[in-house]
Amino acid sequence: HETSLEFAPSVARAAVLKESSSLPEDMPQIKGYDFNQGVDHRALLQSFLTTGFQASSFGQAVQEINKMIEKRLEPVQEEQESCDSHSSASGCTIFLGYTSNLISSGVRESIRYLAQHRMVDVIVTTAGGIEEDFIKCLAPTYLGEFSLKGKELRQQGINRIGNLLVPNDNYCKFEDWLMPILDQMVLEQKTEGTHWTPSKMIHRLGKEINNPDSVYYWAYKNDIPVFSPALTDGSLGDMIYFHSYKNPGLVLDIVEDIRRLNSKAVFAKSTGMIILGGGLVKHHIANANLMRNGADFAVFVNTGQEFDGSDSGARPDEAISWGKIRMDASPVKVYADASIVFPLLVAETFAHNAARLIKEKNSD
Amino acid sequence: HETSLEFAPSVARAAVLKESSSLPEDMPQIKGYDFNQGVDHRALLQSFLTTGFQASSFGQAVQEINKMIEKRLEPVQEEQESCDSHSSASGCTIFLGYTSNLISSGVRESIRYLAQHRMVDVIVTTAGGIEEDFIKCLAPTYLGEFSLKGKELRQQGINRIGNLLVPNDNYCKFEDWLMPILDQMVLEQKTEGTHWTPSKMIHRLGKEINNPDSVYYWAYKNDIPVFSPALTDGSLGDMIYFHSYKNPGLVLDIVEDIRRLNSKAVFAKSTGMIILGGGLVKHHIANANLMRNGADFAVFVNTGQEFDGSDSGARPDEAISWGKIRMDASPVKVYADASIVFPLLVAETFAHNAARLIKEKNSD
Amino acid sequence: HETSLEFAPSVARAAVLKESSSLPEDMPQIKGYDFNQGVDHRALLQSFLTTGFQASSFGQAVQEINKMIEKRLEPVQEEQESCDSHSSASGCTIFLGYTSNLISSGVRESIRYLAQHRMVDVIVTTAGGIEEDFIKCLAPTYLGEFSLKGKELRQQGINRIGNLLVPNDNYCKFEDWLMPILDQMVLEQKTEGTHWTPSKMIHRLGKEINNPDSVYYWAYKNDIPVFSPALTDGSLGDMIYFHSYKNPGLVLDIVEDIRRLNSKAVFAKSTGMIILGGGLVKHHIANANLMRNGADFAVFVNTGQEFDGSDSGARPDEAISWGKIRMDASPVKVYADASIVFPLLVAETFAHNAARLIKEKNSD
Amino acid sequence: HETSLEFAPSVARAAVLKESSSLPEDMPQIKGYDFNQGVDHRALLQSFLTTGFQASSFGQAVQEINKMIEKRLEPVQEEQESCDSHSSASGCTIFLGYTSNLISSGVRESIRYLAQHRMVDVIVTTAGGIEEDFIKCLAPTYLGEFSLKGKELRQQGINRIGNLLVPNDNYCKFEDWLMPILDQMVLEQKTEGTHWTPSKMIHRLGKEINNPDSVYYWAYKNDIPVFSPALTDGSLGDMIYFHSYKNPGLVLDIVEDIRRLNSKAVFAKSTGMIILGGGLVKHHIANANLMRNGADFAVFVNTGQEFDGSDSGARPDEAISWGKIRMDASPVKVYADASIVFPLLVAETFAHNAARLIKEKNSD
Repeated sequence: HETSLEFAPSVARAAVLKESSSLPEDMPQIKGYDFNQGVDHRALLQSFLTTGFQASSFGQAVQEINKMIEKRLEPVQEEQESCDSHSSASGCTIFLGYTSNLISSGVRESIRYLAQHRMVDVIVTTAGGIEEDFIKCLAPTYLGEFSLKGKELRQQGINRIGNLLVPNDNYCKFEDWLMPILDQMVLEQKTEGTHWTPSKMIHRLGKEINNPDSVYYWAYKNDIPVFSPALTDGSLGDMIYFHSYKNPGLVLDIVEDIRRLNSKAVFAKSTGMIILGGGLVKHHIANANLMRNGADFAVFVNTGQEFDGSDSGARPDEAISWGKIRMDASPVKVYADASIVFPLLVAETFAHNAARLIKEKNSD
Repeated sequence: HETSLEFAPSVARAAVLKESSSLPEDMPQIKGYDFNQGVDHRALLQSFLTTGFQASSFGQAVQEINKMIEKRLEPVQEEQESCDSHSSASGCTIFLGYTSNLISSGVRESIRYLAQHRMVDVIVTTAGGIEEDFIKCLAPTYLGEFSLKGKELRQQGINRIGNLLVPNDNYCKFEDWLMPILDQMVLEQKTEGTHWTPSKMIHRLGKEINNPDSVYYWAYKNDIPVFSPALTDGSLGDMIYFHSYKNPGLVLDIVEDIRRLNSKAVFAKSTGMIILGGGLVKHHIANANLMRNGADFAVFVNTGQEFDGSDSGARPDEAISWGKIRMDASPVKVYADASIVFPLLVAETFAHNAARLIKEKNSD
Repeated sequence: HETSLEFAPSVARAAVLKESSSLPEDMPQIKGYDFNQGVDHRALLQSFLTTGFQASSFGQAVQEINKMIEKRLEPVQEEQESCDSHSSASGCTIFLGYTSNLISSGVRESIRYLAQHRMVDVIVTTAGGIEEDFIKCLAPTYLGEFSLKGKELRQQGINRIGNLLVPNDNYCKFEDWLMPILDQMVLEQKTEGTHWTPSKMIHRLGKEINNPDSVYYWAYKNDIPVFSPALTDGSLGDMIYFHSYKNPGLVLDIVEDIRRLNSKAVFAKSTGMIILGGGLVKHHIANANLMRNGADFAVFVNTGQEFDGSDSGARPDEAISWGKIRMDASPVKVYADASIVFPLLVAETFAHNAARLIKEKNSD
Repeated sequence: HETSLEFAPSVARAAVLKESSSLPEDMPQIKGYDFNQGVDHRALLQSFLTTGFQASSFGQAVQEINKMIEKRLEPVQEEQESCDSHSSASGCTIFLGYTSNLISSGVRESIRYLAQHRMVDVIVTTAGGIEEDFIKCLAPTYLGEFSLKGKELRQQGINRIGNLLVPNDNYCKFEDWLMPILDQMVLEQKTEGTHWTPSKMIHRLGKEINNPDSVYYWAYKNDIPVFSPALTDGSLGDMIYFHSYKNPGLVLDIVEDIRRLNSKAVFAKSTGMIILGGGLVKHHIANANLMRNGADFAVFVNTGQEFDGSDSGARPDEAISWGKIRMDASPVKVYADASIVFPLLVAETFAHNAARLIKEKNSD
């Protein structure tokens, strides 16, 4: 570089042309997918790891979830199983959390697949994340637009969730379905002393809906506990409120559920957290994992940011400070709308693995 | 413009120089604060209304909250008051919601001021929004940095909340304080048949803390109900969990609370919602206001966006489609971190109004 | 619903159970991908349209780009072609814009594919979007982490771009490559009267790099103009600055380029805009399309939001108010990091279409 | 804690009740403003430093800018001044950058104040950041709403910028004003050999507008250079494009400007960067400061995030890796819309300091 050295301001040249130390040899180089090799979607998704930015985070999330799946399939010693009734038979207890809107969206079908095939062990969601699943068994949700006017929609009785539309009649159908079940629940409480908790109520509703499209039908069938401590915060709460005037007395206790949820974490061999969105579902799963001094694996998918100090937007590294994720873990956050990212994650992890297992079985 | 017309591509000129219809004469012109008049903070904040972007939203939020305050002070007819025990004596029932991190931050002092002077009528927050207030009465929270490493912090037992730091010893002190109260609660449940709900527990804790720095001490003193249906989702839940092994049996029922919260909305003369952050607190207040076919006034302050279909990020117009805000309301969303915006909002609304009332009184 | 009507507060029931008008019969129902049918990536990506939120926006972007491609292939009348030298032979002139970081990332390979196969007609990017392409021909970029400390990196001479790392030596190599070319450019200016503009310089650099990995090599080969009015804002500017001390006199004129860019829009049959990221590249393409009273098709992929009044975050509907997009167009914005979304968009549009055409050709 | 130790799962207790190391004694405690002391805006803004989250970032930004101002006022040795013509007479050269939308908003008045009183030394903005200032001298901008429909606005010839509205007639008035100046510029180029650059053109326009409301009038009067390398990317470019058909030949060179800008950084005693928004203005100022091995002080105010690898959203720490900010600096990023934050920052820094100086002078 001597030629221009003498002419240019030397401080500028020194700053701009500072020499660099060499990087480790095994450091991955950035390289995207080459479409000259045709459209091979799987190769494309695998190339994300070296594409950078959130594509790389996606690739790392695939690896992290596949570690959970592998660990989950590890044989658990019989001895351990027998001596402790709390103990999970799974090598890795996977906690899946998601916000209500994802059940309203078509991500529901990915979640239902996981519940149907018992690929996750514990579910945490909000009230809407419960009721919208049942309501969709009664009537459809539609694709609209983010910019539709609230006033016009209200006049027509159409509720908007982002770019989704839910006719209010769907909630009327939900009431028709739910009221007799609430009657029955009150009866059982009074006559059999049933101590209702949100998770028990969700289990019961999953049984009652008796529909293979439902996430909670499968959670019921496969005995996957579903936690939703603020179960009254939504249409379920509206109906419970109305019902309380007609047939009062129902009690929904949240103490028994926190004990049950925490036990799932405490007595697990290892745990993984897959959390879509923020708010209660993110905090509740992470807090339960503090009870075991941290989850072993973690994948967060959300659009939140840390700058406002919210738990929703916090990076996984904040959870490490609290002991909610292990200090030696390699948690991944993907900054993205889960509607795009979660189906792709399931494709490259749970579903891919299932397809592989079937193939191996068939070839035996 | 004839001169260049003949030379330039005419389609381009026509598109660029399209004539405009005139705007309404009373449309506000954009004009920022002129610092040549010196630093007059109040005038500066008033100039925000015509500054554009979120500064204008701030100005509109000030107007909207001042409408709530004015309505709240309207005399309520005696007749109405007497004939309905649910009925609020206030012309406008103000629901205040906020996420846990704001109690961890210095926004707590603004919220405490509102509770202390009974300027709001109903509070909704998350578990952390409750316990962090009590913990701050026991030991301080510190200012750190967003980039501090989780592993090093965990090794030192320091928990990070954004750029705040909370020594873990604070939670040990919380346990020492809480455990005897939990014993007492179980005792009262067993001996007096107390039916505990989250709001009743918060009321009791506010009494026990007996400290004027506490938001919930003042909520207790001023009989402001505080709702937090997922009260087990945090350190309170951890302690309840531990306590359940030593002294089991506590029941926290969320059904009675949803009835109580909804009644606050249903029987109000008019309602206003002030919601800081998203998640449960935003949904829970808005859902309660659906019970009255919509709030009359609403101010949201948060950093969420609508594109992912989350309730947290939804614009107020989405709530109108659901009937959670009235069709003829003029709700305001300020896209900002509440740590900057909320103290300024309080300054220009509640606190300004209080100062004005005192002045008027003194001048009589 | 009569049963509980008499008991519950009637206003609440009326609000919650408001009847709805029926939606149009052809309104798409929300339905996600069913993994029980195995992992069919193409079917999965097609299911995004009815998945909701940004997945639906992705599906709409696929449709919008496919409309551009279809229109672009429409035969153009000979007559039109002959009578106007400015006139494009393409039925739709596609403007592609992207920020610098995407060239640093593996999205570069998708962009290079589009330039290589002449699938786009005009490119707009920033200085970094030019130089990083050439630098990558000289030495690789690596995958790092967002949280690596700036001070330690600077001490080692490693530059960070999000989670990418670029050794500073790469820029030294760039200087070695660029300086003789700058000498030659000054010579040609002086001896041949070459009037240099950013687009001419980029064209020349594309020729000089002579490397099929380079986007601008292919832009040179395929005569795709590349605009970058602030070409001095980056390492190219650093080098031009140093060079100006040794061999002064180079002039880079931006007036000729604006005329050239605008002509591309004005004389196009129809236009489509595909813009990844915000800032200059978004504004510059949209402004050129104002010259034709608006683009016919538009897809924006970025993470910006409208609340701060930035052009970067503005929804396409804002561009319609300016005449930058046609009033009858159906522009699409996908709120997402382009590193995940753009390769998937290319897969479902340009690359899919190319594969289809090859198949059709072979089957003839 | 012994009482419940024996009962609760010991691993959970150990994790939750981990003891903490003590924090440094001088660590600031979180404490917000107490409105019981009345509404003292200045005390309120000072309390932001210990309020946490972005309020604390605001407080740190105030400190950082005040450091720039203090340094700027330090006496510079005569000797140094005389021996180097490039050398700045200021102890700290302050670079101010902002995006176009802020000139459209009322933030313009804050910026104008800084230019009027020569409180900053170098300005960088985009084309819109130039032209909107002049256009506002010709006709006003109005407050509208983010949700106004683009199609209806276009039909009326009203342009939307976030929640601002600009009648298209304003741009017609701008053409009438600008065309004769462009004629004159071409004439001077031809007759006097004027070598036009964006900064020279802005200087000339500032002189021509001759209006104390204009930022660039004051920049002209106070000889503050204004850089905008992509000056053709906006209405100015539209007009230059039209003009080029009528009176061709204008050359705007960006090479001379990059040399001029870099010299401002290289020969400064120390430098501070205040950058509102992202894109070109952020990169251009930071890149110039690389020429001096990094700025000494830096404040960024924007809403961008780092996850997509954009320069706009990058934290200051990324700039340290590049040598654009000094390794020992304490740069601050405030995540906020500048329309709220920048006027408040000016109030607590430049304007407060000016008021203080006047007071001190008067008391002498």
